[in-house]
Amino acid sequence: MKNNINQKEISKGFKKYEPVSKASFKFFSAVEKLKITLRSESVLVTDSLDRVLAFDFKSPLDVPPFRRATMDGYAILSRDTMGASEIKPTLLKIMGRSNAGEKTSLKVKQGTAIAIATGAKIPKGADSVAMVEITSTNSEMVSIFKKIELGKNVARVGEDVQKGQVLIKKGTLLTSQDIAIMSSVGVNRISVYRKPRVAIFSTGNELVEPGSRLSESSVYESNRYMLSSLAKELGCEVIDMGICPDDKKSIQRRLKSALRHDIVIISGGSSVGSKDYVPEVINELGRPGVLVHGIAMRPGSPTALSIVDKTPIISAPGYPVSAYFAFFTFARPLIMKLLRTSDSHISTVDATITKTLQLSPRMRTFLRVKLDKKKQGNGFRYGAKPISATGASLLSTLTQSDGFTILDNKSVIKKGEKIHVITLRQGKNIEF
Amino acid sequence: MKNNINQKEISKGFKKYEPVSKASFKFFSAVEKLKITLRSESVLVTDSLDRVLAFDFKSPLDVPPFRRATMDGYAILSRDTMGASEIKPTLLKIMGRSNAGEKTSLKVKQGTAIAIATGAKIPKGADSVAMVEITSTNSEMVSIFKKIELGKNVARVGEDVQKGQVLIKKGTLLTSQDIAIMSSVGVNRISVYRKPRVAIFSTGNELVEPGSRLSESSVYESNRYMLSSLAKELGCEVIDMGICPDDKKSIQRRLKSALRHDIVIISGGSSVGSKDYVPEVINELGRPGVLVHGIAMRPGSPTALSIVDKTPIISAPGYPVSAYFAFFTFARPLIMKLLRTSDSHISTVDATITKTLQLSPRMRTFLRVKLDKKKQGNGFRYGAKPISATGASLLSTLTQSDGFTILDNKSVIKKGEKIHVITLRQGKNIEF
Repeated sequence: MKNNINQKEISKGFKKYEPVSKASFKFFSAVEKLKITLRSESVLVTDSLDRVLAFDFKSPLDVPPFRRATMDGYAILSRDTMGASEIKPTLLKIMGRSNAGEKTSLKVKQGTAIAIATGAKIPKGADSVAMVEITSTNSEMVSIFKKIELGKNVARVGEDVQKGQVLIKKGTLLTSQDIAIMSSVGVNRISVYRKPRVAIFSTGNELVEPGSRLSESSVYESNRYMLSSLAKELGCEVIDMGICPDDKKSIQRRLKSALRHDIVIISGGSSVGSKDYVPEVINELGRPGVLVHGIAMRPGSPTALSIVDKTPIISAPGYPVSAYFAFFTFARPLIMKLLRTSDSHISTVDATITKTLQLSPRMRTFLRVKLDKKKQGNGFRYGAKPISATGASLLSTLTQSDGFTILDNKSVIKKGEKIHVITLRQGKNIEF
Repeated sequence: MKNNINQKEISKGFKKYEPVSKASFKFFSAVEKLKITLRSESVLVTDSLDRVLAFDFKSPLDVPPFRRATMDGYAILSRDTMGASEIKPTLLKIMGRSNAGEKTSLKVKQGTAIAIATGAKIPKGADSVAMVEITSTNSEMVSIFKKIELGKNVARVGEDVQKGQVLIKKGTLLTSQDIAIMSSVGVNRISVYRKPRVAIFSTGNELVEPGSRLSESSVYESNRYMLSSLAKELGCEVIDMGICPDDKKSIQRRLKSALRHDIVIISGGSSVGSKDYVPEVINELGRPGVLVHGIAMRPGSPTALSIVDKTPIISAPGYPVSAYFAFFTFARPLIMKLLRTSDSHISTVDATITKTLQLSPRMRTFLRVKLDKKKQGNGFRYGAKPISATGASLLSTLTQSDGFTILDNKSVIKKGEKIHVITLRQGKNIEF
C-alpha cells in the first residue's frame, strides 16, 4: 500500500520546527537588510504620548534660566544669620517682596531681607532664602530663628538642566514626564517617527463578522480585531483589510494590495491543510518569499515569516491564542525595530510556580498563569498557577490569565521554581 | 521681640503633616459618600481598548457552537483505528471533504473517512479526527498509521465557552484579548463607563506657555501638560482650563467653572506662601472644603485634598516632581474609584537597592531609581540605584529614572534590601 502514498500530500505536514531563536535570526536579519525607514513627522508635544522620539532632544535653554527661590521665605545674605537661634533670632528689615513671574529691581544688602515666593527670581545681593517656617514677622521686620547656609533654598542657573544637554534620547517611547520636561524648556513641537502602517487581513470561509448572524458551521472573526488592537497599542496605524475567502486568487489579490504598507499580518491559512494557501501564494508573489514556516513554539507553531519585495509578512495561525503569541514573538519586535525603539511595552513580575508541570522539550512554551499575591515582609510576592498547558483555540485561557511565562526547551518545570511573568492585565493585583 | 510676631503669618507654615494613609482615608471616605456615578455608554468592541467594562460580559452562545476539528486530517470513527500502526495502518475510504465554513450533509460510517480542515464542522457519525501528519493518502483511500483515541482533535460544543458564562468581569480595563473574546462570541457593541471628565488648570503669574518667548523671571508651564497626559492615560477626558493668574478672584472664577466636571486638579498655589490662595478659595467656595492640607510625603507635601459640593479637588504642588507624586497617590486611585476598576495601571519589578541611604522618618519617600539588569541563572535580576533623594523641582530626576519605590516611615534603607520598583518607562530594559 505504501507505494500508493501521495508524497506531496504527506510533505504538507511540518517536517521540522525551526527554534524560535533561529527563526527570529533569519527573519530579523533579512528585515535589517531591507533598511526600512519611517520618516519623521512633527507633532505637538501635548500629542506626543506613546510616540517615539526621532532625534536626541536637547534643551534649548538653562533651567532655571535665572536664580530662583525653591521655598517661600525671605531672600537674605547668609552671613547675616550667623549665630541665629530660637532664643536669639537675627532681625532683618523687610525691603519689599519678590513674587513669581514678577520682575524686581530690589536689592538685598546687609541687615535687610526681601520676602520671596517659591519660583520667584532671587533679588540681586541675596545669596540664600530663609524658609517661612523658621521665621516670624511683623510687616516691617523679620526674625530668623536659625543660621541659613550659603545658597540655601536657591536653585542655581542650569541646576536642573543645562542648555544643550540631551534630555531624552532618540528612540524613547514618550511618557507624560517627557511631555512635562519638553514643555518646561519651552518646546511645543517635536519630531517623532510616523506610525508604522500595518495591513491586517484574515483568511477563512468560516469567518463571519461579529454583530451578524452565525450560520451553521461558521465562526465569528476575532483574530483580526485582536491583532489590530495589539498593533494600535504599539503605536501603529492599522489598515483593516477584512476577511479574505480561502482561495488562492483572492488571497493573492488581497496580499498584493497589502504589500504597499510597512508590515503585513495575515491571520489564518498558514498551517498545512489543503486550504492553507498563504505560504504558497507568498512564494509565488515575489522574492525572497517564505523564510521560515513552522516554528518550535507552543502555541503558535504554524507561524510563517516572509518577505516579499521590501515588505515583511507575518502569517499568524488561525487559533487566537497562537495568533497572540505569534504577534508577541515576531510582530511586536518588528514594530519596535521599525520605530527604532528598545522600549518593549512589556511589564513583568517575579513569581514562583505553584505546580510541577511536564512540557514539550525542544519547544518554546508560553505558559499562561494566574497570579496569587501573598504578603511577604513589608512587600508581597506572587504565586503563579498554570491555568492550561494546551488549548490554542481557547481564547479564555488567555483572557483568564494574569500573564504568561516563556520556557525554552524544558521538559519539566518544578513547583517552587522562580519565573518572570509577563503581565496580560497591567496593574491587576497591584495596589499602592 | 517675640510678642510682635504676627501669629497668623506663622501659622501659614505647615504645622503638621498628615500621614499618607490618614490623608487617603479622610479623602476617599468623603468621596465615597458623594456616590459619584459615571453613566455607561455603548461603544464598538473594536473601540473598547483601555475602556472599563460597565457590566459582567456573558457569552450569548456556546463556543464552539458545533463540534469542530482542531486539526487538519480525517474525520473518522475511533474504533476503526484499533490496532493501527506504522506497519499495519488502518485503511479507510474517503467519502468527501468538510471545509471550514461549509455545510456538509456527509456522514462517516464504519470503514470510511471524510477529509476535514481545522475549524470545519465534524460530520455526523464521526467521533475523532486523525491528524494529517500520521496519515497518507491517494485520492480515494487514506492510511492511518496510529490508533486514534475517542474524541481526539474534536472540540466539543461549549468546550471553550458556555452560553451565559461570565467571560469578563465588570470593572475590567479592556485589553486586546478581551476584544478578541467578545468578538469571538459575536458581540460588536458593549457598555463601558463614560470617561471621567477631569478639569485641570495651573496657577502662577510666572507661567508662560511653551512655544512663546520666555520673559525675565518667568517659567514655562509643564505641570498642566503632564497632569493632562497622565489623566488621559488613565482613560479620562481632560478639560484644559489653562493658566490662572495668582489672584483670589481669578482662582475663584476658574475653580467655580471647573466644579461642574467630575474631578478638578489644580497645579500650584497649594503651599503656604502669601500668594498660595488655592486652599483659601476652596474653603470660601463651598462645603466641606479642604479636608487635608500638608501630607507626610516627599516629594509632594504641600498637596491639598478637598471637596466642594459634590466635586473632589486635588491641589497638586507647583513643583513638577511633587505634582507627579500627588497625581500618583491621589488622582490615580480617585479616577480608578470613579471607573469602579481595580486595574491600577502600574507595573513593578523586584530589585535590590545598591546604596545605603538616609531618609526622612515619619514620611512616605518616593525614591527614584535607575535600574541595572543583571543576568541570574536563566533569568535576570535588577539592581536599583537611587538617583536623587531630593530635588522636587528637578524634572530630570523623574525623566532619567527607570522607576521609583515607596518607602514608608523608614529612617534608612540599606544596601541589599529588596524593593518593589514601580516602573516609569514600560518595558525599558526588558527583552523577550
